[in-house]
Amino acid sequence: MTVRVCVNGYGTIGKRVADAIALQPDMELVGVAKTRPGFEAEAALRRGYPLYVTGGGDPGEFRRAGLKVAGNLEEMLRAADVVIDCAPEKAGKENAPLYRARGIRAIFQGGEKAEIADRSFNALANYSEGLGRERLRVVSCNTTGIARAAAVLGRWGVRRWEATLVRRAADPSESRRGPINGILPTFQLPSHHGPDVRTVVPGLPIRTAAVVVPTTLMHVHVNQVELERPPADLAEVREAFAKSPRFRLFRSWERVEGTPQVMEFARDRGAARPDMMENVLWEEGMALAGAELTFFQAIHQESIVVPENVDAVRAIFQLQPDGARSMAITDRTLGIPPGT
Amino acid sequence: MTVRVCVNGYGTIGKRVADAIALQPDMELVGVAKTRPGFEAEAALRRGYPLYVTGGGDPGEFRRAGLKVAGNLEEMLRAADVVIDCAPEKAGKENAPLYRARGIRAIFQGGEKAEIADRSFNALANYSEGLGRERLRVVSCNTTGIARAAAVLGRWGVRRWEATLVRRAADPSESRRGPINGILPTFQLPSHHGPDVRTVVPGLPIRTAAVVVPTTLMHVHVNQVELERPPADLAEVREAFAKSPRFRLFRSWERVEGTPQVMEFARDRGAARPDMMENVLWEEGMALAGAELTFFQAIHQESIVVPENVDAVRAIFQLQPDGARSMAITDRTLGIPPGT
Amino acid sequence: MTVRVCVNGYGTIGKRVADAIALQPDMELVGVAKTRPGFEAEAALRRGYPLYVTGGGDPGEFRRAGLKVAGNLEEMLRAADVVIDCAPEKAGKENAPLYRARGIRAIFQGGEKAEIADRSFNALANYSEGLGRERLRVVSCNTTGIARAAAVLGRWGVRRWEATLVRRAADPSESRRGPINGILPTFQLPSHHGPDVRTVVPGLPIRTAAVVVPTTLMHVHVNQVELERPPADLAEVREAFAKSPRFRLFRSWERVEGTPQVMEFARDRGAARPDMMENVLWEEGMALAGAELTFFQAIHQESIVVPENVDAVRAIFQLQPDGARSMAITDRTLGIPPGT
Amino acid sequence: MTVRVCVNGYGTIGKRVADAIALQPDMELVGVAKTRPGFEAEAALRRGYPLYVTGGGDPGEFRRAGLKVAGNLEEMLRAADVVIDCAPEKAGKENAPLYRARGIRAIFQGGEKAEIADRSFNALANYSEGLGRERLRVVSCNTTGIARAAAVLGRWGVRRWEATLVRRAADPSESRRGPINGILPTFQLPSHHGPDVRTVVPGLPIRTAAVVVPTTLMHVHVNQVELERPPADLAEVREAFAKSPRFRLFRSWERVEGTPQVMEFARDRGAARPDMMENVLWEEGMALAGAELTFFQAIHQESIVVPENVDAVRAIFQLQPDGARSMAITDRTLGIPPGT
Repeated sequence: MTVRVCVNGYGTIGKRVADAIALQPDMELVGVAKTRPGFEAEAALRRGYPLYVTGGGDPGEFRRAGLKVAGNLEEMLRAADVVIDCAPEKAGKENAPLYRARGIRAIFQGGEKAEIADRSFNALANYSEGLGRERLRVVSCNTTGIARAAAVLGRWGVRRWEATLVRRAADPSESRRGPINGILPTFQLPSHHGPDVRTVVPGLPIRTAAVVVPTTLMHVHVNQVELERPPADLAEVREAFAKSPRFRLFRSWERVEGTPQVMEFARDRGAARPDMMENVLWEEGMALAGAELTFFQAIHQESIVVPENVDAVRAIFQLQPDGARSMAITDRTLGIPPGT
Repeated sequence: MTVRVCVNGYGTIGKRVADAIALQPDMELVGVAKTRPGFEAEAALRRGYPLYVTGGGDPGEFRRAGLKVAGNLEEMLRAADVVIDCAPEKAGKENAPLYRARGIRAIFQGGEKAEIADRSFNALANYSEGLGRERLRVVSCNTTGIARAAAVLGRWGVRRWEATLVRRAADPSESRRGPINGILPTFQLPSHHGPDVRTVVPGLPIRTAAVVVPTTLMHVHVNQVELERPPADLAEVREAFAKSPRFRLFRSWERVEGTPQVMEFARDRGAARPDMMENVLWEEGMALAGAELTFFQAIHQESIVVPENVDAVRAIFQLQPDGARSMAITDRTLGIPPGT
Repeated sequence: MTVRVCVNGYGTIGKRVADAIALQPDMELVGVAKTRPGFEAEAALRRGYPLYVTGGGDPGEFRRAGLKVAGNLEEMLRAADVVIDCAPEKAGKENAPLYRARGIRAIFQGGEKAEIADRSFNALANYSEGLGRERLRVVSCNTTGIARAAAVLGRWGVRRWEATLVRRAADPSESRRGPINGILPTFQLPSHHGPDVRTVVPGLPIRTAAVVVPTTLMHVHVNQVELERPPADLAEVREAFAKSPRFRLFRSWERVEGTPQVMEFARDRGAARPDMMENVLWEEGMALAGAELTFFQAIHQESIVVPENVDAVRAIFQLQPDGARSMAITDRTLGIPPGT
Repeated sequence: MTVRVCVNGYGTIGKRVADAIALQPDMELVGVAKTRPGFEAEAALRRGYPLYVTGGGDPGEFRRAGLKVAGNLEEMLRAADVVIDCAPEKAGKENAPLYRARGIRAIFQGGEKAEIADRSFNALANYSEGLGRERLRVVSCNTTGIARAAAVLGRWGVRRWEATLVRRAADPSESRRGPINGILPTFQLPSHHGPDVRTVVPGLPIRTAAVVVPTTLMHVHVNQVELERPPADLAEVREAFAKSPRFRLFRSWERVEGTPQVMEFARDRGAARPDMMENVLWEEGMALAGAELTFFQAIHQESIVVPENVDAVRAIFQLQPDGARSMAITDRTLGIPPGT
């Protein structure tokens, strides 16, 4: 079976999801939808994606720019078995009734509230919960990163987890968001990430707080975790992360000082755009004292949820009954190396 | 008694300490010492401070720039009862034997190791420990901020404290340090700040980790604390901070979103340079759940240790037997409002 | 005669203008007006300025924050002889009819179009043109900087002037404007600054282009000028700038590498906030080849127009018939050193 | 004939040049040389490039990191017909005698002085001058950008060209260079770029000045040019640029506001890393008044010289007698679209 997938919203996440879908052996990308013309719409056409107009956009504006329009949102939905909603935050909420009215299955992003879907989803943490659902919500980038780490740490049990999220202020392609020089605390305490991750890892005793800083590359999490059972040693913890899919553990000799070098690594690896879809950890950036584990984790906000969206399609249509199998296919097609 | 004070090193900290000393009723600034000419040396002379040459600097270089030199380091030390060493990190270690050989009392900064002095010092946390000492070490900006907060939280007892330090990468006047775009984890876990704060607050069960981010204004700490005894409510905690000297608690209606507005507040307040010598807290940036307290704290790295250096002089010479009295004098002269 | 001045709009420019007016021997600050409460409104009251509510603001919101309100805009205007409009860009246009209806003289800022006033104004360039006017417009920060430089260069005549304006993207207290990492060309060619400066220096053959860069401190202009008559040498040019009011020429030994050190110089000088109201030039940042002069010029966008607003008041009320006299008073009260 | 090429220095430029050489039908990459292990060396091996140790590096350090070393610099040179020196600025000067002693042809980068080679080189500007040379020097990124533009503007003749170079302060993978917040004028007037471009375009009457700004993405040039003969209209100028190889002219509807979107365009285009090897221009960012042309130009410092190095190999070995033919091959293999 080949699932016909369309992507509504073709920005930072949507364009990556579209590319990823197009690479899957068991899926077909039948279209992407965008509101306004621009270099991104042009790129969609260059890649051969049928381009639909959504969000109240004007097809005439596209045509005047010389961009071929395949139709409107309704028409795109008709051509698909499932829509992946990558509209701007909160717009998914407005789209949901339309999808429901048309009887199309749907995947939403983490900017929407959990109630929008039957289940919040993360491949490593709860793939099987997504099997056969009508509507899934792929949790946001930071929540995805935490959920994955929780899936790995689960073997020792988590007694308490304090996380500080040092958030990038804008994506690389955004030029209107600040701050340029300063740190902004997020005055929601605890931040929404803790409750959000519990939609995929129920009961996880995590407390999160966030600050926003002037960078565009990645988020960094500072995690201080008390495990229920002490690992044998730090090597055991490192190995558990390294063996898991969707983690990249940098070694000291690789000279990766921080997020600038992580993104350079991705460029050198030949990843598209470049993206870094794994949770990034550093051997040097981990410490264990008894059952107390401290570790840094970097999250590429633009791409970490991309493989999760692919797996969500597989779960909905039960293309693979097993998360590990789905992830293996996804990761192979996207160039994410398997755990070691 | 008027204590004659000299300042060795006239950079970010040294120039502020010099200004602060010059404002004290019980102290006299007899000189400042600098290695090279520049606009900062010029400013020292404009303020009427005798300017000495230190650190292997060439007096001829000063004279060619038209800057009047009062003598060398030895001569400055002869004119003083105490030297405040504000030389670059680790240079204090080289200066210490000279001070000792000349029999002059000395205050060092937190960039030096604790062993350099008889005692590490923070006015709110351990003023009385400094009384009559030969050599004190004022702990670094981040450690000062933590020590002050620990002094306030002590009334409830601290069972466990996890702190993430989001550090500014450079001072505003530095143009050669990066990163420009990125986050750098500090690969020392836990970071040195925990052990360092225990030199002034023995046994404080704090664990710290740090990241460096591209800003010049302030550090921000994200604190997750488990108290031994639950406060009655958040208002009680806020009041404790607000009443303490050297804290500024911003209220929601003041619209202080982050460090850019904190520094703007300081500018509007009319503070010199402007400086913000208090620990900065936000009413919105605090949460209490039982005995679990979360709070943000911003630290102005350029100035927070300045009043501490003044109090250290008073402790050494026992000009005031009581820390609260010393702080009151210091804060009044420096324009730091008293606790409310 | 003491002119009663009020300031409508109390943001970056308004608060500085208010402070400057309050320091003048021949003026009285009778009030400032602001739309919303916040730390800036609080600072106005702390400085003793009567605080009025403007721009559709709600006096109740101020009172709930504990801020004392003196009245509304109409009431403030009634108490004054002249209003300095420091409302956000384009808001002055909306305020103008009200001022006219009330018969009050008015000074506008450069964010408004030239037509709003009887004359665009710069103290060094055309003080006498402002004498006795009803309405003046102080040109914007970049235009002020260019107009001053034009006034100095006028002695040799300007045949052709190409200027690139490297603009700061946000003010230090703004946390919502970007870009964080990138350069944005201003797609208006030539930029509006050339025509704008000709409203004060008629016929100046300048062509300007601008880019926006991720910094908050200052603008920098790169000027390539062909003079009509070659100066004797570069020293003659330097001297002309140095002797003029409102220029600061940094010498090489001062080690001022760029805008970070310029602002640090201002902090060390003890300027309020700190501000740098002079055009900033560097001895090293000037070159002369025949009649071809190249020079860099840094402009502190927050404060450079402040003394010009003060002089505009004097011109309107003919408190001083001569610009040099007015500037001397303004500069002495604001701590701007005279030309050397 | 297949030319055997080795690359000495595998940083920002070297790794890109190596990739580009490996894609050429008439060249073979026989090795790359690096001083220290790290993620970049790892990437070289992953790509199958023989890895040599250079610059006094320790082969043992590589081996301990598990990186296979093929030999030392001498051994690499023996295996090649030509070496492309991509060592850090000024290191090429130290390497030059070694290359000469070994009788190997060599290409140097623009960080070296012009005297290091027989000729400075730019494919569009002076390809034929490079034919059969022993040693060429590919001029630096900014100079390359200017030389290309000069080649296009040459049809109208250039009477006078004033250029301001707004330079990025660090590359994306560098985390130690500043400034974080500020603008630094380059106190060399005129800057070296003018004389440098005249090594490839003799007599070009350009005067350049530069500032450094806190961004990592691209340089932006602001050009104000007086042509000898006025173009018919702006469309004619646009067409000349658009038709030339190695220019990308953005149209208004593409919504490319500045360098962040240019790099996003490159990511969407699917370029490796992503790179942007063309001079970037904007239709909106050009103005013509008679013979006076103003235009912005963005330069991707990491990659713009890469195709030039490839063409330099072809010129040296006379693999193509004609620059246009060489560029066409290079551009096709590197994914640079031809002129339209």
